[in-house]
Amino acid sequence: MTTSYAIAVLPGDGIGPEVVACALEVLDAAEQRYGFTTERSTLAAGANHYLETGELFDAVEAQLRGNDAILFGSMGDPRVTPGILERGFILEMRQRFQQAANVRPVRLYPGVPTPIADLSPERCEMVIVRENTEGAYVGRGSTVHAGTPHAVAMQESLNTRAGIERVVDFSFRLALGRRKRLTLCHKTNILVAAGQLWQQVVAEVGERYPEVEVDYVHVDAMCFHLPLTPERFDVVVTDNLFGDIITDLGAVIQGGLGVATSANLNLDGSAPSMFEAIHGSAPDIAGTGLANPAGAILSLALMLGHLGEGEAARAVEAATVEVLGALPALAGAGMGATTSEIGARVAELVRDGRT
Amino acid sequence: MTTSYAIAVLPGDGIGPEVVACALEVLDAAEQRYGFTTERSTLAAGANHYLETGELFDAVEAQLRGNDAILFGSMGDPRVTPGILERGFILEMRQRFQQAANVRPVRLYPGVPTPIADLSPERCEMVIVRENTEGAYVGRGSTVHAGTPHAVAMQESLNTRAGIERVVDFSFRLALGRRKRLTLCHKTNILVAAGQLWQQVVAEVGERYPEVEVDYVHVDAMCFHLPLTPERFDVVVTDNLFGDIITDLGAVIQGGLGVATSANLNLDGSAPSMFEAIHGSAPDIAGTGLANPAGAILSLALMLGHLGEGEAARAVEAATVEVLGALPALAGAGMGATTSEIGARVAELVRDGRT
Ligand SMILES: CC(C)[C@H](C(=O)O)[C@@H](O)C(=O)O
Ligand SMILES: CC(C)[C@H](C(=O)O)[C@@H](O)C(=O)O
Repeated sequence: MTTSYAIAVLPGDGIGPEVVACALEVLDAAEQRYGFTTERSTLAAGANHYLETGELFDAVEAQLRGNDAILFGSMGDPRVTPGILERGFILEMRQRFQQAANVRPVRLYPGVPTPIADLSPERCEMVIVRENTEGAYVGRGSTVHAGTPHAVAMQESLNTRAGIERVVDFSFRLALGRRKRLTLCHKTNILVAAGQLWQQVVAEVGERYPEVEVDYVHVDAMCFHLPLTPERFDVVVTDNLFGDIITDLGAVIQGGLGVATSANLNLDGSAPSMFEAIHGSAPDIAGTGLANPAGAILSLALMLGHLGEGEAARAVEAATVEVLGALPALAGAGMGATTSEIGARVAELVRDGRT
Repeated sequence: MTTSYAIAVLPGDGIGPEVVACALEVLDAAEQRYGFTTERSTLAAGANHYLETGELFDAVEAQLRGNDAILFGSMGDPRVTPGILERGFILEMRQRFQQAANVRPVRLYPGVPTPIADLSPERCEMVIVRENTEGAYVGRGSTVHAGTPHAVAMQESLNTRAGIERVVDFSFRLALGRRKRLTLCHKTNILVAAGQLWQQVVAEVGERYPEVEVDYVHVDAMCFHLPLTPERFDVVVTDNLFGDIITDLGAVIQGGLGVATSANLNLDGSAPSMFEAIHGSAPDIAGTGLANPAGAILSLALMLGHLGEGEAARAVEAATVEVLGALPALAGAGMGATTSEIGARVAELVRDGRT
């Protein structure tokens, strides 16, 4: 009997399709080597599709729902008004599929240069877990007296015990399998109502995980600690907006968006989880072979781990690290290999079982 | 006739008094050299004072109000519950004295090592202007069903046209005297109500400053651009919470809290402005001579500029840069000179007119 997984693929715009193609080639190799199969459905979505059809998440929700996982390329195009795809697709998917935890590993890969002085891979090995469905991302606000000198805009951040608890519990479990250290990142001295709820939940859930040491860092201080003392962190849990900001800082530290990945995890099995590279659609380099597919391939590794194919996940990650380490430089003309060459090399290493 | 300024001095806790003492020695030198005088009143405030008396901002408001400027050391002590001094003193002062703009220059000083690879002083010369009185810092929120599984915490961000306009107008004027480039930093694709108001105000006020080029960057993307392409920025204007975060990133880039300063400016003359180093009270190194007084001395320079003593301001800054550049390293035991030695050297350069 062979295990088969239903995978929805959303290549999206710009460099999305080409980096996803690399990830799928690596997935082929992993299937051959590790003896599972996938049933893949590729769905049109993103800026180009929206411009042609006006369709957003609604149009694909039903087709996505039955899958075991979603592999996502990237979305975006300057012709689409900012906010439309973000709110109409990405946030909509996170909400409707209850992708409660946005999980972003931050680690240095040998050979991938970090812009931070004196940082070495041993000192930087953490996972940032971002609450992914609420907080300021509920997108609710109201404006009175718009267009007048007396305009007032109120923007809400809604935080529920249930929403916080599930992501905090997930983070504790993650820490338990790692270095057993959990750091809450918030701004509790200013955002008192939300901050107190986060702190209470961390304290209460923490009682179930006495082996895990709990720490707290303000989001502004995080700008210091992340680049300068990353060894302090194992698992960092934070709210939606702070997570959006500090994970980008994490990506900078690890050498840029090229290698940063994220998993949008549904934690209760009610809908599929989604895996994506963090980079954007970079329409300016689409089709030139300059895009680095490492982020997309590493997001495939996260997906395989999530599906329970741990061995395949580790092989894909190791192969990517090896290929990255052999490249002279990472971005642009200096990468030393094209997008598809990099994909082919990783696939080859995985297929031949050389990692 | 000699000009005299009334200065309130709030040394505060930990290393506050010793770095402020250095700044005052430099101020003495600047007065001698540039022929103005100050009338100084030193007021007790901060964690120790609060622990002894229970007094916060209320207790000094009247004494502070009549002054031309406030020189602030630092506040904080682990024995005081987080939030009490922040909200009861610092935010209270910003609000009641309508210190509308929190201005933080981000520049590299020769000899002060930045942790960012390949960054040079020519590439990094910006000012971040943070709205300082509203947004999420209004500190309003509410919680229902606290302590139950159904708890919900709502946290508000209040943004007024008037509050945004004054800081945006200030930022345009600042840009006009510099490289004529203003960047709005926000998260308009998610925080729609607040984001639209910010964008409208920037667009409208910008019509009065057609020479200034306007740009926009999302706060998450700022984590990339600030360290990697700082040459892109001249004046950055942003909201209170985002400003809190990105200015700390700015401080990292410029080599740490030791040299970072900020001005809390009242823009309508209704109350005094406040000048402070960004570092905390660092009680662990208080009294050891290990604290770097550069931040406090540079905040004195900002204060002198604000008072209209431009020549003195430039001299103090230049002297500080010169002394910093001659130190072997910046922090801790490797600084090569004690707190008071550094202060004395800067004062000497200023007094002798050697910068
Ligand atoms: C595209 C945008 C909606 C999104 C976010 O703000 O969450 C992105 O920045 C991210 O971090 O995934
Ligand atoms: C001390 C605290 C209230 C303050 C803030 O959050 O504004 C500090 O972080 C700052 O940036 O001045």
